Amino acid sequence: MSESRYDWLHDRWVVFAPQRAARPDEFRDRFQPARRPGFTCPFCAGNERETPPAILSLPPSSPRSKQAWQVRVVPNRYPALESLSPLTSARPWGDEGQQTPANSGLDEKIPSPAADLESPISVSPSPQCTRGIHEVIIETPEHLESLTQLAREDAQLVFRAMRQRLTALRANHRLHYAVVFKNVGAAAGASLSHSHSQLISTDFVPPNIRRVSRRLQHFQQQHQTGYFEQALEQELKHGDRLVAHSEFFVAFVPYASALPYFVTILPKTRQPRFEESSDLELADFSEVVQRILLAMESTFAELAYNFILHTSPFDAGGDQAFHWRMEIVPRLTQVAGFEWGTDCYINPVLPEYAAEVLREAMETGPAQDSPTTLPLLKQRTNSPAVS
Amino acid sequence: MSESRYDWLHDRWVVFAPQRAARPDEFRDRFQPARRPGFTCPFCAGNERETPPAILSLPPSSPRSKQAWQVRVVPNRYPALESLSPLTSARPWGDEGQQTPANSGLDEKIPSPAADLESPISVSPSPQCTRGIHEVIIETPEHLESLTQLAREDAQLVFRAMRQRLTALRANHRLHYAVVFKNVGAAAGASLSHSHSQLISTDFVPPNIRRVSRRLQHFQQQHQTGYFEQALEQELKHGDRLVAHSEFFVAFVPYASALPYFVTILPKTRQPRFEESSDLELADFSEVVQRILLAMESTFAELAYNFILHTSPFDAGGDQAFHWRMEIVPRLTQVAGFEWGTDCYINPVLPEYAAEVLREAMETGPAQDSPTTLPLLKQRTNSPAVS
Repeated sequence: MSESRYDWLHDRWVVFAPQRAARPDEFRDRFQPARRPGFTCPFCAGNERETPPAILSLPPSSPRSKQAWQVRVVPNRYPALESLSPLTSARPWGDEGQQTPANSGLDEKIPSPAADLESPISVSPSPQCTRGIHEVIIETPEHLESLTQLAREDAQLVFRAMRQRLTALRANHRLHYAVVFKNVGAAAGASLSHSHSQLISTDFVPPNIRRVSRRLQHFQQQHQTGYFEQALEQELKHGDRLVAHSEFFVAFVPYASALPYFVTILPKTRQPRFEESSDLELADFSEVVQRILLAMESTFAELAYNFILHTSPFDAGGDQAFHWRMEIVPRLTQVAGFEWGTDCYINPVLPEYAAEVLREAMETGPAQDSPTTLPLLKQRTNSPAVS
Repeated sequence: MSESRYDWLHDRWVVFAPQRAARPDEFRDRFQPARRPGFTCPFCAGNERETPPAILSLPPSSPRSKQAWQVRVVPNRYPALESLSPLTSARPWGDEGQQTPANSGLDEKIPSPAADLESPISVSPSPQCTRGIHEVIIETPEHLESLTQLAREDAQLVFRAMRQRLTALRANHRLHYAVVFKNVGAAAGASLSHSHSQLISTDFVPPNIRRVSRRLQHFQQQHQTGYFEQALEQELKHGDRLVAHSEFFVAFVPYASALPYFVTILPKTRQPRFEESSDLELADFSEVVQRILLAMESTFAELAYNFILHTSPFDAGGDQAFHWRMEIVPRLTQVAGFEWGTDCYINPVLPEYAAEVLREAMETGPAQDSPTTLPLLKQRTNSPAVS
């Protein structure tokens, strides 16, 4: 039986259709592209000149350290955005950016074409030289392919590097937003296998982020509690979508997750900005992330995934309802025509089942032999309790 | 240089970053999964009992026809949605569906949790047994893998079958929306290679479709002309994003297309419903679709793509601003963490360049040897005219 759930935050429906996992598949090996032989990794220690000079190295180099760096942040050599230079004037559309389409969602008003522009297609802002920052966080000097292979303290350094860069970028008044993300595996958009993350900071707030923020604010006003606070309370109470639980964090498979085995890691108390986390919180967070990724890697052979670290837009007020969080998105299925056309998702795995699989993987530790088929099919014998 | 463009209809930004196509890629063969040997195709003539009985066969069988069918529409054996049965009561949330979250976008009002539901996570509608229709349009009795391999008249039959099914489903008062789509290649979500499309019809209108419809209405009210009419006028005037132009249709690469080589095919005069197309229009449309797909196939080896046929939600009024259209979405790049997190897209190919490549491919006809590298890199020597 199909069951559909409404994803309130993103205003979309997700249809859970476990029966679709049983359909025949003519293709195989779809998530395991071959590596090019003889490829020189630009992120390995010794190849530093293959990347631009570092913006940040951790730990700070000292005469005593044998190694030059453990984590290295460099500008992306192939940036998505034109770099912000100190000489450029402020944002392309002026400082009253709030009134431009870049910043106004449909919710408030429809942007109308500026009178001096002939085309509605290029509504309002004429094409912009997009400005921003695109950095790469190289997570290890060795050629390791997963964050889970890093020692606990080394993994913490990765998140400290993110904190440090976000703090620095937020001080730049031309930047309004930043997101840290990770693409692992070709199916998740990665072009290099050396463990790394990326940071993009932009001189506008993406409309979708603004819509989500606005929904969070509405929820707060209507319910005298935050959306995520209430979600957290429910998840802890019911427990069947919980994946991990630490001193400062709760990880769960969201009620209406669009993709199979999607996991959200949420701080237990509201904190809009990741970059304001303490060392203690980061250490805890780092461990939770490593544990969940390890559970996923032991469940899925050659796991491809993205993670997204959502932190508050820089210029949001302090009373905002934003909650920083990490989303881990395994890329086990392809987004197809129906999803692309409607923004509704067909997900063959119920969140309660995905959470159970991940919890079990965490208890038993990594399997000796990685499984090669996806546990999409099996359904729990009990009908899932639905909160 | 990066250039970003605002996609007005979907309220999102697209960053065009041709320089990113130059980045090194450690992976190869990422879009060409192997076929399982000895796989029996359930869609080939002779294997009809591998699928449920046909809902529609074209041409209607006659004693004179040697072949039983050319196009065959069957219920999806692995449906995403629970089938509507004549015995079920009306839609799960009653006939005043307009007031439920399923039908209300954030734009109008925030859905609030129903008093009898304890969890905000499952806001308002409790989990539903989703009802709807999921059909497969088998486009040929032979094992052909592309719509472009069909004779012109046989391709027309495919679109006639879609028209006939949409007309029939629209008459069902329990259904509110339908979309026809095609997944070709594993990278586009296909599990079978035999040329086929799918139709999903739902008892709710996807919120995203409602948002787009509302934006179209606003545009119409503010500008005394339709969004697509104005887009069409601009595209015809400037010409540099045009791909094809026929008696009834214009095909172009949209100004702010999120993915490389994305093509929209639009009727020249506004028509909300695909299913009201005449035979003459369908014949013309079918030819345009075949020509564009052929151009894409001759440009990209082992092309994976989706197409989405957008037609008006069933219960929209006659004065609506909806414009039926087809979107063809080649799957040449992966949607990665940044896109998933922000709904902004980084597209390495400018629309003007993509249109030029496709126009050239259409003029020269299919290449003798399919190219194996993607023409993502080359940029036009002239800076693109921007309308």
